[in-house]
Amino acid sequence: MSPSPLVIVFDVNETLSDLRPIADRFLAVGAPAHLAPLWFATVLRDGFALTAVGDARPFAQLGAEALRTLLHGVELRTDPAAGLDGSLEGAVEHVLDGMGRLPLHPDVVDGVRGLRADGHRLFTLSNGSSRVGEQLLTAAGVREEFEAVLSVDEAGAWKPAPAAYEHVLRVAGSRPQEALLVAVHPWDVDGAARAGLGTAWVDRDGAPYPASSTSARVRATDLVDLRAQLAAGSR
Amino acid sequence: MSPSPLVIVFDVNETLSDLRPIADRFLAVGAPAHLAPLWFATVLRDGFALTAVGDARPFAQLGAEALRTLLHGVELRTDPAAGLDGSLEGAVEHVLDGMGRLPLHPDVVDGVRGLRADGHRLFTLSNGSSRVGEQLLTAAGVREEFEAVLSVDEAGAWKPAPAAYEHVLRVAGSRPQEALLVAVHPWDVDGAARAGLGTAWVDRDGAPYPASSTSARVRATDLVDLRAQLAAGSR
Repeated sequence: MSPSPLVIVFDVNETLSDLRPIADRFLAVGAPAHLAPLWFATVLRDGFALTAVGDARPFAQLGAEALRTLLHGVELRTDPAAGLDGSLEGAVEHVLDGMGRLPLHPDVVDGVRGLRADGHRLFTLSNGSSRVGEQLLTAAGVREEFEAVLSVDEAGAWKPAPAAYEHVLRVAGSRPQEALLVAVHPWDVDGAARAGLGTAWVDRDGAPYPASSTSARVRATDLVDLRAQLAAGSR
Repeated sequence: MSPSPLVIVFDVNETLSDLRPIADRFLAVGAPAHLAPLWFATVLRDGFALTAVGDARPFAQLGAEALRTLLHGVELRTDPAAGLDGSLEGAVEHVLDGMGRLPLHPDVVDGVRGLRADGHRLFTLSNGSSRVGEQLLTAAGVREEFEAVLSVDEAGAWKPAPAAYEHVLRVAGSRPQEALLVAVHPWDVDGAARAGLGTAWVDRDGAPYPASSTSARVRATDLVDLRAQLAAGSR
Protein backbone atom coordinates (compact mmCIF):
# COMPACT_ATOMS: atom_id res chain seq x y z
CA MET A 1 0.00 0.00 0.00
CA SER A 2 1.52 3.34 -0.98
CA PRO A 3 1.78 6.12 1.64
CA SER A 4 -0.95 8.76 1.66
CA PRO A 5 -0.29 11.90 -0.41
CA LEU A 6 1.16 14.98 1.24
CA VAL A 7 0.91 18.72 0.80
CA ILE A 8 4.53 19.39 -0.08
CA VAL A 9 5.64 22.99 0.49
CA PHE A 10 8.88 23.99 -1.21
CA ASP A 11 11.04 26.90 -0.23
CA VAL A 12 12.18 28.65 -3.44
CA ASN A 13 15.48 30.58 -3.20
CA GLU A 14 18.39 28.10 -2.96
CA THR A 15 16.03 25.15 -2.40
CA LEU A 16 14.65 25.16 -5.97
CA SER A 17 16.79 27.86 -7.59
CA ASP A 18 20.57 27.82 -7.78
CA LEU A 19 21.54 31.17 -6.29
CA ARG A 20 25.21 30.98 -7.29
CA PRO A 21 24.82 32.72 -10.69
CA ILE A 22 23.65 35.87 -8.86
CA ALA A 23 27.37 36.41 -8.25
CA ASP A 24 27.66 37.20 -11.99
CA ARG A 25 25.30 40.12 -11.45
CA PHE A 26 27.59 41.49 -8.76
CA LEU A 27 30.59 41.12 -11.08
CA ALA A 28 28.65 42.84 -13.87
CA VAL A 29 27.99 45.95 -11.76
CA GLY A 30 31.64 46.08 -10.66
CA ALA A 31 31.39 44.44 -7.23
CA PRO A 32 33.28 41.34 -6.05
CA ALA A 33 31.48 38.02 -6.50
CA HIS A 34 31.82 37.21 -2.81
CA LEU A 35 29.35 39.99 -1.96
CA ALA A 36 26.58 37.77 -3.36
CA PRO A 37 26.27 35.33 -0.42
CA LEU A 38 26.82 38.21 2.02
CA TRP A 39 23.97 40.10 0.38
CA PHE A 40 21.58 37.15 0.62
CA ALA A 41 22.47 36.52 4.29
CA THR A 42 22.03 40.25 4.98
CA VAL A 43 18.56 40.35 3.43
CA LEU A 44 17.46 37.37 5.51
CA ARG A 45 19.08 38.89 8.61
CA ASP A 46 17.16 42.12 8.12
CA GLY A 47 13.93 40.33 7.24
CA PHE A 48 14.18 38.17 10.36
CA ALA A 49 14.95 41.23 12.52
CA LEU A 50 11.64 42.71 11.37
CA THR A 51 9.92 39.34 11.88
CA ALA A 52 11.23 39.32 15.47
CA VAL A 53 9.42 42.62 16.15
CA GLY A 54 6.24 41.55 14.34
CA ASP A 55 6.75 43.55 11.16
CA ALA A 56 7.44 42.66 7.52
CA ARG A 57 8.67 44.24 4.30
CA PRO A 58 8.86 42.78 0.77
CA PHE A 59 12.08 40.91 -0.06
CA ALA A 60 12.79 43.27 -2.97
CA GLN A 61 12.66 46.29 -0.66
CA LEU A 62 15.06 44.81 1.90
CA GLY A 63 17.15 43.46 -0.96
CA ALA A 64 17.49 46.95 -2.46
CA GLU A 65 18.35 48.51 0.89
CA ALA A 66 21.00 45.88 1.63
CA LEU A 67 22.50 46.43 -1.83
CA ARG A 68 22.70 50.18 -1.28
CA THR A 69 24.68 49.53 1.92
CA LEU A 70 26.92 46.78 0.51
CA LEU A 71 27.64 48.63 -2.75
CA HIS A 72 28.43 51.83 -0.82
CA GLY A 73 31.98 52.78 -1.81
CA VAL A 74 32.16 50.29 -4.72
CA GLU A 75 33.16 51.85 -8.02
CA LEU A 76 30.22 50.81 -10.19
CA ARG A 77 30.72 49.83 -13.83
CA THR A 78 29.12 51.51 -16.81
CA ASP A 79 28.09 49.04 -19.51
CA PRO A 80 25.41 50.39 -21.85
CA ALA A 81 25.09 47.00 -23.60
CA ALA A 82 24.01 45.47 -20.27
CA GLY A 83 21.84 48.47 -19.39
CA LEU A 84 24.24 49.62 -16.67
CA ASP A 85 24.63 53.39 -16.37
CA GLY A 86 27.05 53.33 -13.42
CA SER A 87 24.39 54.52 -10.97
CA LEU A 88 23.67 52.85 -7.66
CA GLU A 89 19.98 52.41 -8.48
CA GLY A 90 20.89 50.86 -11.83
CA ALA A 91 23.15 48.37 -10.08
CA VAL A 92 20.49 47.57 -7.48
CA GLU A 93 17.95 46.88 -10.21
CA HIS A 94 20.41 44.71 -12.15
CA VAL A 95 21.09 42.45 -9.17
CA LEU A 96 17.43 42.18 -8.12
CA ASP A 97 16.40 41.36 -11.68
CA GLY A 98 18.74 38.38 -11.53
CA MET A 99 16.69 36.69 -8.79
CA GLY A 100 13.89 35.87 -11.26
CA ARG A 101 16.29 34.51 -13.90
CA LEU A 102 18.15 31.90 -11.88
CA PRO A 103 18.32 28.31 -13.04
CA LEU A 104 16.76 25.56 -10.97
CA HIS A 105 19.07 22.93 -9.49
CA PRO A 106 19.48 20.00 -11.94
CA ASP A 107 17.47 17.59 -9.75
CA VAL A 108 14.44 19.87 -9.38
CA VAL A 109 12.55 19.21 -12.61
CA ASP A 110 12.70 15.41 -12.27
CA GLY A 111 12.10 15.54 -8.54
CA VAL A 112 9.07 17.80 -8.80
CA ARG A 113 7.51 15.83 -11.68
CA GLY A 114 8.07 12.59 -9.81
CA LEU A 115 6.54 13.85 -6.58
CA ARG A 116 3.52 15.13 -8.51
CA ALA A 117 3.22 11.83 -10.36
CA ASP A 118 3.19 10.06 -6.98
CA GLY A 119 0.03 12.00 -6.10
CA HIS A 120 1.41 14.68 -3.81
CA ARG A 121 0.02 18.22 -3.91
CA LEU A 122 2.82 20.72 -4.53
CA PHE A 123 3.10 24.33 -3.31
CA THR A 124 5.86 26.87 -2.95
CA LEU A 125 6.21 29.32 -0.07
CA SER A 126 8.92 31.94 -0.44
CA ASN A 127 10.14 34.87 1.62
CA GLY A 128 10.58 36.40 -1.83
CA SER A 129 7.77 37.47 -4.13
CA SER A 130 5.39 35.04 -5.79
CA ARG A 131 6.30 36.76 -9.10
CA VAL A 132 9.88 35.50 -8.85
CA GLY A 133 8.61 32.00 -8.03
CA GLU A 134 6.29 32.09 -11.04
CA GLN A 135 9.14 33.26 -13.30
CA LEU A 136 11.56 30.54 -12.18
CA LEU A 137 9.08 27.66 -12.40
CA THR A 138 7.59 28.82 -15.70
CA ALA A 139 11.02 29.17 -17.31
CA ALA A 140 11.88 25.63 -16.20
CA GLY A 141 8.58 24.25 -17.55
CA VAL A 142 7.26 22.94 -14.21
CA ARG A 143 4.85 25.67 -13.14
CA GLU A 144 1.84 23.44 -13.85
CA GLU A 145 3.04 20.83 -11.37
CA PHE A 146 2.23 23.27 -8.52
CA GLU A 147 -1.23 24.08 -7.18
CA ALA A 148 -0.09 27.50 -5.98
CA VAL A 149 3.06 29.60 -5.92
CA LEU A 150 2.88 31.53 -2.67
CA SER A 151 4.77 34.29 -0.92
CA VAL A 152 4.90 35.33 2.72
CA ASP A 153 3.86 38.77 1.41
CA GLU A 154 0.29 37.48 1.59
CA ALA A 155 0.82 36.24 5.18
CA GLY A 156 2.22 39.49 6.60
CA ALA A 157 5.05 37.55 8.26
CA TRP A 158 8.25 35.98 6.95
CA LYS A 159 9.26 32.44 7.59
CA PRO A 160 10.23 31.19 10.19
CA ALA A 161 7.25 32.89 11.95
CA PRO A 162 4.32 30.46 12.41
CA ALA A 163 1.93 32.77 10.50
CA ALA A 164 3.91 32.21 7.30
CA TYR A 165 3.41 28.43 7.38
CA GLU A 166 -0.22 28.83 8.44
CA HIS A 167 -0.78 30.77 5.21
CA VAL A 168 0.05 27.85 2.94
CA LEU A 169 -1.92 25.43 5.16
CA ARG A 170 -4.94 27.71 4.82
CA VAL A 171 -4.61 27.92 1.03
CA ALA A 172 -4.16 24.16 0.77
CA GLY A 173 -6.93 23.42 3.28
CA SER A 174 -4.44 21.16 5.02
CA ARG A 175 -3.65 20.27 8.61
CA PRO A 176 0.02 20.78 9.55
CA GLN A 177 0.66 17.07 10.04
CA GLU A 178 -0.42 16.38 6.43
CA ALA A 179 2.13 18.87 5.12
CA LEU A 180 5.87 18.60 4.50
CA LEU A 181 8.12 21.67 4.27
CA VAL A 182 11.12 21.11 2.00
CA ALA A 183 14.09 23.48 2.35
CA VAL A 184 17.86 23.73 2.25
CA HIS A 185 17.83 26.22 5.16
CA PRO A 186 17.85 24.86 8.72
CA TRP A 187 16.03 28.00 9.99
CA ASP A 188 13.14 27.14 7.63
CA VAL A 189 13.06 23.50 8.74
CA ASP A 190 13.09 24.70 12.34
CA GLY A 191 10.22 27.17 11.86
CA ALA A 192 8.09 24.65 9.99
CA ALA A 193 8.67 21.99 12.67
CA ARG A 194 7.64 24.46 15.36
CA ALA A 195 4.47 25.18 13.36
CA GLY A 196 3.69 21.45 13.36
CA LEU A 197 4.59 20.57 9.77
CA GLY A 198 6.68 17.61 8.74
CA THR A 199 10.08 18.65 7.43
CA ALA A 200 12.64 17.59 4.87
CA TRP A 201 16.11 19.08 4.74
CA VAL A 202 17.76 19.05 1.33
CA ASP A 203 21.54 18.97 1.74
CA ARG A 204 23.14 19.00 -1.71
CA ASP A 205 26.62 19.82 -0.33
CA GLY A 206 26.98 17.42 2.59
CA ALA A 207 27.12 20.33 5.06
CA PRO A 208 26.51 19.68 8.78
CA TYR A 209 23.08 20.40 10.29
CA PRO A 210 23.21 22.88 13.20
CA ALA A 211 22.22 21.58 16.63
CA SER A 212 20.28 24.80 17.39
CA SER A 213 17.68 24.04 14.70
CA THR A 214 15.00 21.37 15.11
CA SER A 215 16.10 18.29 13.18
CA ALA A 216 14.38 17.50 9.90
CA ARG A 217 12.33 14.33 9.77
CA VAL A 218 13.69 13.50 6.33
CA ARG A 219 17.20 14.33 5.12
CA ALA A 220 17.67 14.12 1.37
CA THR A 221 20.60 14.80 -0.94
CA ASP A 222 18.25 16.29 -3.56
CA LEU A 223 14.61 16.19 -4.69
CA VAL A 224 15.01 12.91 -6.58
CA ASP A 225 16.31 11.34 -3.38
CA LEU A 226 13.45 12.96 -1.47
CA ARG A 227 10.93 11.37 -3.83
CA ALA A 228 12.51 7.94 -3.37
CA GLN A 229 12.48 8.27 0.41
CA LEU A 230 8.85 9.42 0.50
CA ALA A 231 7.82 6.58 -1.80
CA ALA A 232 9.58 4.19 0.57
CA GLY A 233 7.50 5.51 3.45
CA SER A 234 9.71 8.17 5.08
CA ARG A 235 7.96 11.35 6.16
CA MET B 1 21.56 74.70 31.69
CA SER B 2 23.05 71.39 30.59
CA PRO B 3 20.69 68.62 29.42
CA SER B 4 19.73 65.94 31.96
CA PRO B 5 21.90 62.82 32.06
CA LEU B 6 20.90 59.76 30.11
CA VAL B 7 21.23 56.01 30.50
CA ILE B 8 23.35 55.34 27.42
CA VAL B 9 23.24 51.75 26.18
CA PHE B 10 25.99 50.77 23.76
CA ASP B 11 25.85 47.87 21.39
CA VAL B 12 29.27 46.13 21.45
CA ASN B 13 30.22 44.22 18.29
CA GLU B 14 31.05 46.72 15.50
CA THR B 15 29.66 49.65 17.51
CA LEU B 16 32.51 49.64 20.06
CA SER B 17 34.79 46.95 18.63
CA ASP B 18 36.32 47.02 15.17
CA LEU B 19 35.29 43.66 13.73
CA ARG B 20 37.53 43.87 10.66
CA PRO B 21 40.57 42.13 12.23
CA ILE B 22 38.47 38.98 12.67
CA ALA B 23 39.23 38.44 8.97
CA ASP B 24 42.83 37.66 10.03
CA ARG B 25 41.50 34.73 12.03
CA PHE B 26 39.81 33.36 8.92
CA LEU B 27 43.05 33.75 6.95
CA ALA B 28 44.97 32.04 9.76
CA VAL B 29 42.77 28.94 9.61
CA GLY B 30 43.06 28.79 5.81
CA ALA B 31 39.76 30.42 4.82
CA PRO B 32 39.30 33.52 2.64
CA ALA B 33 39.06 36.84 4.51
CA HIS B 34 35.72 37.64 2.88
CA LEU B 35 34.09 34.84 4.87
CA ALA B 36 34.38 37.06 7.97
CA PRO B 37 31.50 39.49 7.22
CA LEU B 38 29.45 36.59 5.81
CA TRP B 39 29.96 34.70 9.07
CA PHE B 40 28.87 37.64 11.21
CA ALA B 41 25.76 38.26 9.09
CA THR B 42 24.98 34.53 9.23
CA VAL B 43 25.20 34.41 13.04
CA LEU B 44 22.84 37.37 13.32
CA ARG B 45 20.53 35.85 10.70
CA ASP B 46 20.31 32.61 12.66
CA GLY B 47 19.98 34.41 15.99
CA PHE B 48 17.15 36.55 14.65
CA ALA B 49 15.41 33.49 13.16
CA LEU B 50 15.32 31.99 16.66
CA THR B 51 14.21 35.34 18.08
CA ALA B 52 11.34 35.36 15.58
CA VAL B 53 10.07 32.06 17.02
CA GLY B 54 10.60 33.12 20.63
CA ASP B 55 13.77 31.14 21.27
CA ALA B 56 17.42 32.05 21.93
CA ARG B 57 20.88 30.48 21.95
CA PRO B 58 24.23 31.97 23.02
CA PHE B 59 26.15 33.85 20.32
CA ALA B 60 29.12 31.50 20.68
CA GLN B 61 26.93 28.47 19.98
CA LEU B 62 25.40 29.94 16.83
CA GLY B 63 28.81 31.31 15.89
CA ALA B 64 30.36 27.84 16.10
CA GLU B 65 27.53 26.26 14.10
CA ALA B 66 27.78 28.91 11.37
CA LEU B 67 31.55 28.37 11.20
CA ARG B 68 31.12 24.60 10.79
CA THR B 69 28.83 25.26 7.82
CA LEU B 70 30.93 28.04 6.23
CA LEU B 71 34.25 26.20 6.71
CA HIS B 72 32.75 22.98 5.28
CA GLY B 73 34.94 22.06 2.31
CA VAL B 74 37.70 24.55 3.18
CA GLU B 75 41.17 23.02 3.43
CA LEU B 76 42.14 24.05 6.95
CA ARG B 77 45.72 25.04 7.78
CA THR B 78 47.93 23.39 10.34
CA ASP B 79 50.07 25.87 12.27
CA PRO B 80 51.31 24.51 15.60
CA ALA B 81 52.81 27.91 16.54
CA ALA B 82 49.30 29.42 16.35
CA GLY B 83 47.73 26.39 18.07
CA LEU B 84 46.05 25.25 14.84
CA ASP B 85 45.93 21.49 14.37
CA GLY B 86 44.05 21.55 11.05
CA SER B 87 40.82 20.32 12.67
CA LEU B 88 37.44 21.97 12.15
CA GLU B 89 36.89 22.41 15.90
CA GLY B 90 40.33 23.97 16.27
CA ALA B 91 39.50 26.46 13.53
CA VAL B 92 36.12 27.25 15.09
CA GLU B 93 37.74 27.93 18.44
CA HIS B 94 40.43 30.12 16.85
CA VAL B 95 37.88 32.38 15.15
CA LEU B 96 35.59 32.62 18.18
CA ASP B 97 38.54 33.47 20.43
CA GLY B 98 39.23 36.47 18.21
CA MET B 99 35.93 38.11 19.15
CA GLY B 100 37.22 38.96 22.63
CA ARG B 101 40.53 40.33 21.34
CA LEU B 102 39.31 42.92 18.89
CA PRO B 103 40.43 46.54 19.14
CA LEU B 104 37.93 49.27 19.87
CA HIS B 105 37.36 51.91 17.19
CA PRO B 106 39.78 54.84 17.68
CA ASP B 107 37.00 57.24 18.77
CA VAL B 108 35.59 54.95 21.48
CA VAL B 109 37.93 55.64 24.41
CA ASP B 110 37.65 59.42 24.15
CA GLY B 111 33.94 59.29 23.38
CA VAL B 112 33.13 57.00 26.29
CA ARG B 113 35.24 58.96 28.78
CA GLY B 114 33.68 62.22 27.62
CA LEU B 115 30.12 60.93 27.87
CA ARG B 116 30.83 59.63 31.38
CA ALA B 117 32.44 62.97 32.34
CA ASP B 118 29.27 64.71 31.16
CA GLY B 119 27.34 62.76 33.79
CA HIS B 120 25.70 60.07 31.68
CA ARG B 121 25.33 56.52 33.01
CA LEU B 122 26.91 54.03 30.61
CA PHE B 123 25.89 50.42 29.90
CA THR B 124 26.55 47.89 27.20
CA LEU B 125 23.99 45.42 25.84
CA SER B 126 25.32 42.81 23.44
CA ASN B 127 23.86 39.88 21.55
CA GLY B 128 27.25 38.36 22.37
CA SER B 129 28.39 37.29 25.81
CA SER B 130 29.09 39.73 28.63
CA ARG B 131 32.50 38.03 28.97
CA VAL B 132 33.54 39.30 25.53
CA GLY B 133 32.30 42.79 26.43
CA GLU B 134 34.29 42.71 29.68
CA GLN B 135 37.42 41.57 27.81
CA LEU B 136 37.22 44.28 25.16
CA LEU B 137 36.53 47.16 27.56
CA THR B 138 39.08 46.01 30.12
CA ALA B 139 41.83 45.68 27.50
CA ALA B 140 41.07 49.22 26.30
CA GLY B 141 41.14 50.60 29.86
CA VAL B 142 37.55 51.88 29.90
CA ARG B 143 35.70 49.13 31.76
CA GLU B 144 35.29 51.37 34.85
CA GLU B 145 33.36 53.97 32.84
CA PHE B 146 30.45 51.50 32.58
CA GLU B 147 27.97 50.67 35.32
CA ALA B 148 27.27 47.25 33.83
CA VAL B 149 28.34 45.16 30.85
CA LEU B 150 25.25 43.20 29.87
CA SER B 151 24.30 40.45 27.48
CA VAL B 152 20.96 39.39 26.06
CA ASP B 153 21.81 35.95 27.48
CA GLU B 154 20.37 37.22 30.76
CA ALA B 155 17.22 38.44 28.99
CA GLY B 156 16.41 35.20 27.16
CA ALA B 157 15.84 37.14 23.93
CA TRP B 158 18.21 38.72 21.41
CA LYS B 159 17.94 42.28 20.26
CA PRO B 160 15.85 43.52 18.44
CA ALA B 161 13.16 41.80 20.58
CA PRO B 162 11.67 44.21 23.16
CA ALA B 163 12.61 41.90 26.07
CA ALA B 164 16.31 42.48 25.36
CA TYR B 165 16.03 46.26 25.81
CA GLU B 166 13.76 45.83 28.83
CA HIS B 167 16.58 43.91 30.49
CA VAL B 168 18.98 46.86 30.51
CA LEU B 169 16.20 49.26 31.58
CA ARG B 170 15.45 46.96 34.51
CA VAL B 171 19.12 46.77 35.56
CA ALA B 172 19.49 50.54 35.24
CA GLY B 173 16.17 51.26 36.92
CA SER B 174 15.39 53.52 33.98
CA ARG B 175 12.31 54.42 31.98
CA PRO B 176 12.76 53.89 28.21
CA GLN B 177 12.50 57.62 27.47
CA GLU B 178 15.50 58.31 29.74
CA ALA B 179 17.64 55.82 27.81
CA LEU B 180 19.55 56.12 24.54
CA LEU B 181 20.58 53.07 22.52
CA VAL B 182 23.77 53.64 20.52
CA ALA B 183 24.50 51.28 17.63
CA VAL B 184 25.95 51.05 14.14
CA HIS B 185 23.24 48.56 13.13
CA PRO B 186 19.91 49.89 11.86
CA TRP B 187 18.09 46.75 13.08
CA ASP B 188 19.25 47.60 16.63
CA VAL B 189 18.17 51.23 16.32
CA ASP B 190 14.83 50.00 15.00
CA GLY B 191 14.28 47.52 17.84
CA ALA B 192 15.24 50.05 20.51
CA ALA B 193 12.94 52.71 19.02
CA ARG B 194 10.06 50.21 19.01
CA ALA B 195 10.82 49.49 22.69
CA GLY B 196 10.51 53.21 23.42
CA LEU B 197 14.17 54.14 23.86
CA GLY B 198 15.87 57.10 22.28
CA THR B 199 18.31 56.07 19.57
CA ALA B 200 21.61 57.17 18.10
CA TRP B 201 22.98 55.69 14.90
CA VAL B 202 26.75 55.72 14.57
CA ASP B 203 27.72 55.83 10.91
CA ARG B 204 31.50 55.81 10.63
CA ASP B 205 31.46 55.00 6.89
CA GLY B 206 28.84 57.40 5.54
CA ALA B 207 26.61 54.49 4.51
CA PRO B 208 22.92 55.11 3.75
CA TYR B 209 20.29 54.37 6.42
CA PRO B 210 17.63 51.88 5.25
CA ALA B 211 14.06 53.16 4.97
CA SER B 212 12.67 49.94 6.49
CA SER B 213 14.25 50.69 9.88
CA THR B 214 12.89 53.33 12.23
CA SER B 215 15.09 56.44 11.89
CA ALA B 216 17.55 57.24 14.67
CA ARG B 217 16.90 60.42 16.65
CA VAL B 218 20.61 61.25 16.59
CA ARG B 219 22.97 60.44 13.75
CA ALA B 220 26.66 60.67 14.64
CA THR B 221 29.87 60.00 12.72
CA ASP B 222 31.49 58.51 15.85
CA LEU B 223 31.25 58.61 19.66
CA VAL B 224 33.14 61.91 19.97
CA ASP B 225 30.61 63.48 17.62
CA LEU B 226 27.81 61.83 19.61
CA ARG B 227 29.12 63.40 22.80
CA ALA B 228 29.22 66.85 21.18
CA GLN B 229 25.68 66.49 19.85
CA LEU B 230 24.30 65.32 23.21
CA ALA B 231 26.08 68.18 25.00
CA ALA B 232 24.48 70.57 22.51
CA GLY B 233 21.06 69.23 23.43
CA SER B 234 20.33 66.60 20.76
CA ARG B 235 18.72 63.41 22.00
